[in-house]
Amino acid sequence: MTAIVGIGGGIGASRLWRVLAAATDPSRLTLVVNTGDDIWHRGLRICPDLDTTLYALSDRQDVERGWGLRDETFRCMEELRALGEEVWFNLGDRDLATHLLRTELLRDGAGLAEVTARLAAAMGVAARVLPATEQEVVTTIETADGRRLHYEEFLVREQVRPPVRAVVYDGADAARPAPGVLDAIAGADLIVLAPSSPPASIAPVLAVPGVRDAICAARAPVVAVSPIVSGVPLEDPGDRGRAEARAALLGCAGVAPTATGVAGVYRHLCDRFVLDTADDAELPAVRELGLDAVAVPTLLHRGAPAQPLLDTLLTVPAEAPWS
Amino acid sequence: MTAIVGIGGGIGASRLWRVLAAATDPSRLTLVVNTGDDIWHRGLRICPDLDTTLYALSDRQDVERGWGLRDETFRCMEELRALGEEVWFNLGDRDLATHLLRTELLRDGAGLAEVTARLAAAMGVAARVLPATEQEVVTTIETADGRRLHYEEFLVREQVRPPVRAVVYDGADAARPAPGVLDAIAGADLIVLAPSSPPASIAPVLAVPGVRDAICAARAPVVAVSPIVSGVPLEDPGDRGRAEARAALLGCAGVAPTATGVAGVYRHLCDRFVLDTADDAELPAVRELGLDAVAVPTLLHRGAPAQPLLDTLLTVPAEAPWS
Repeated sequence: MTAIVGIGGGIGASRLWRVLAAATDPSRLTLVVNTGDDIWHRGLRICPDLDTTLYALSDRQDVERGWGLRDETFRCMEELRALGEEVWFNLGDRDLATHLLRTELLRDGAGLAEVTARLAAAMGVAARVLPATEQEVVTTIETADGRRLHYEEFLVREQVRPPVRAVVYDGADAARPAPGVLDAIAGADLIVLAPSSPPASIAPVLAVPGVRDAICAARAPVVAVSPIVSGVPLEDPGDRGRAEARAALLGCAGVAPTATGVAGVYRHLCDRFVLDTADDAELPAVRELGLDAVAVPTLLHRGAPAQPLLDTLLTVPAEAPWS
Repeated sequence: MTAIVGIGGGIGASRLWRVLAAATDPSRLTLVVNTGDDIWHRGLRICPDLDTTLYALSDRQDVERGWGLRDETFRCMEELRALGEEVWFNLGDRDLATHLLRTELLRDGAGLAEVTARLAAAMGVAARVLPATEQEVVTTIETADGRRLHYEEFLVREQVRPPVRAVVYDGADAARPAPGVLDAIAGADLIVLAPSSPPASIAPVLAVPGVRDAICAARAPVVAVSPIVSGVPLEDPGDRGRAEARAALLGCAGVAPTATGVAGVYRHLCDRFVLDTADDAELPAVRELGLDAVAVPTLLHRGAPAQPLLDTLLTVPAEAPWS
C-alpha cells in the first residue's frame, strides 16, 4: 500500500491526517510535524503541534477548541491563578500528563523522536509521528518595535497583535532532521504538505537543513493543500480578527494571503496544488506557476466530504513528472 | 507577644500549628519544617511536609485524607495511568500548581526558603514557614534485604512493608540550616517539638548541623508533644497495620513505640514533655528521665479540646530552668 509522508503543523493538518489515516493503512503514514512552536514553559516541554497530531489521531482531540483534549479540566491552571501567577498558556489537567511524561523522558536523555514514539504507542496511534528535528528550533517573531517573541508568546500571550517585522527560525542552522525523517521522505510514494500556515508550520520544518532537499529529491509526487480559503487562514475559522492578523503574518513572510500566494512559495517544491472550490477562480493563476492545480472541497471541519480531497491526493495523474 | 518556633513534619504537626496559629499572633510563629521527605518526582520538586503545613495553615488541607488539598481531583494522574505509567505518588490537579511553581522558582535559582515564603504569601499564610535546610537531605530507609529507599518510596510505594535495617539522612553532613532557622531558634520564647515521627520528621531536622546545638543553646523552653498515644503513632489513626509498621520503624531508629520511648530520645533536648491523658500512667517514667511531664488531651483531630494543650505549651512554669 502507498507509503505517505505528511508534513505540517497543528489543527489544520491534523484534520487531514485523521482522514488519511482512516482511508489508508495508518502504519504506512508518517507525519513529519513542526516543532517550531515547542516551548519550555514552567519547566515542562510543550510541543503544541505534536500533541495536536497525537490527540487527533487517537481521537481524543477537542475539535471545537482546536487544541488539547476533549473532556478536559483546567484545575491546575486555576490554582496557579489563585496563587497570583499569570497564566497565559493554558494547560489542561489531562494534557499535563503528556507534558510531564515527555519532559521526564527528555530529562532522562531520550530524544524527542523516541519520546514521541512512546507517547504515540501509549495513545494507540498507529501512524508514525515524527518531530521534524530533535534540536530546539524556535519560530521567532521579530516585532516592529524590536522585540523577539517565541511564536507561542506572539500567538497566545499577545494574541497576534504586535506588528511583525520578520519571522525567523532560531537554531535551524544547527539542527538536523530527526531520526527517520529523511528515510521516510526518500521512501514515500506520496508527500503531502498540510493545510498549515506556511511561515508558522511548514517553513520551520523546511528550515531544518536537509529536509527541503530531501523533498525535492524524493521520487514521490508532492501535493500541497492550500491553508487559505477565500483569503482566510484555515486555523481560525471562528475568529476573523485573529485570522486577519495571521494573514498579515503571511505577508511579513512574503506570502500573499491567497491560495495562489501559498502556491507561489511552494512552486519549486510541489507538483500538485489543491485549493478549495471556493477559490477555483485561482486555478489558472496557480497553473501559470507551473503546478498541476485542482479544486475540491477542503473544509473537512465544516462538513465537506473527504472523498474528493482523498481522491485528489491519492490518485497520481498519468502525465505527472514522477510517473 | 510570645515568639514561638515549632519543629516538625506533616499531618500530626500541622494540626498543632493550626491551633497555635489561631491562639497566638501567627506572625510570631515560625515553623521549621522537615524536608527529609522532599523528592524529585517526574521532574517536579515535591515537599510533602512543607505542603501539608502550608495547606493546613491556609485552611485548605484535606483533613480526612491527611495530605493534599480539599476539593481535589486527580485527572492528570488518571491520564498518566491511561498512558501506561505506574503512578505510585498521587498528585492532585490543584496540588500540581504548587509543585510546578516551586520547581520553576527553584530552577530559576531561588532557594527553598525564598520559594516557600513566596508560596506562603500566595496562600495567605501569616505564620513563617521555613524549610529546615535548603540542601537536599534525604531520609533514606536501608531495608533488611539491602535496598536503599527514599522515605516516600518506603512510605507510599512500598506501604511501609519492607523490614528496616536502618534510617539514615543522606546529605545531612553537608547541609546547612536554611536562612532564618538559627535566628528564629535563638530568638524564640518557646520551642515546640511537634507530635511527628521522631525518625521520619524530627530527626532529619536535627540532623542538619547546627540545629540541635541551637535548640540546646536557646534561651526558650523546649516542649515536646508525644506523637505516640496508646502505643500508636498519631499519623495513621485509621490504619492500624500501617501504624504498627511505623512503630516498627521507630524501633529500628532505637525508639520504643511509647510516649516514654519518645521522651527518652528527647530527654537532653527538651524541658517539658506532653503526653496524652490516655498514657498518664507513663508520667512517672517520663519524670524519671528528668523531664517536666504533663498529661493533657492531645487528639485534636478526634475532638479533643485545644485549650489544655495550649495552656501546657504557653504557660511557662515558674520553676523552669529558663525563667
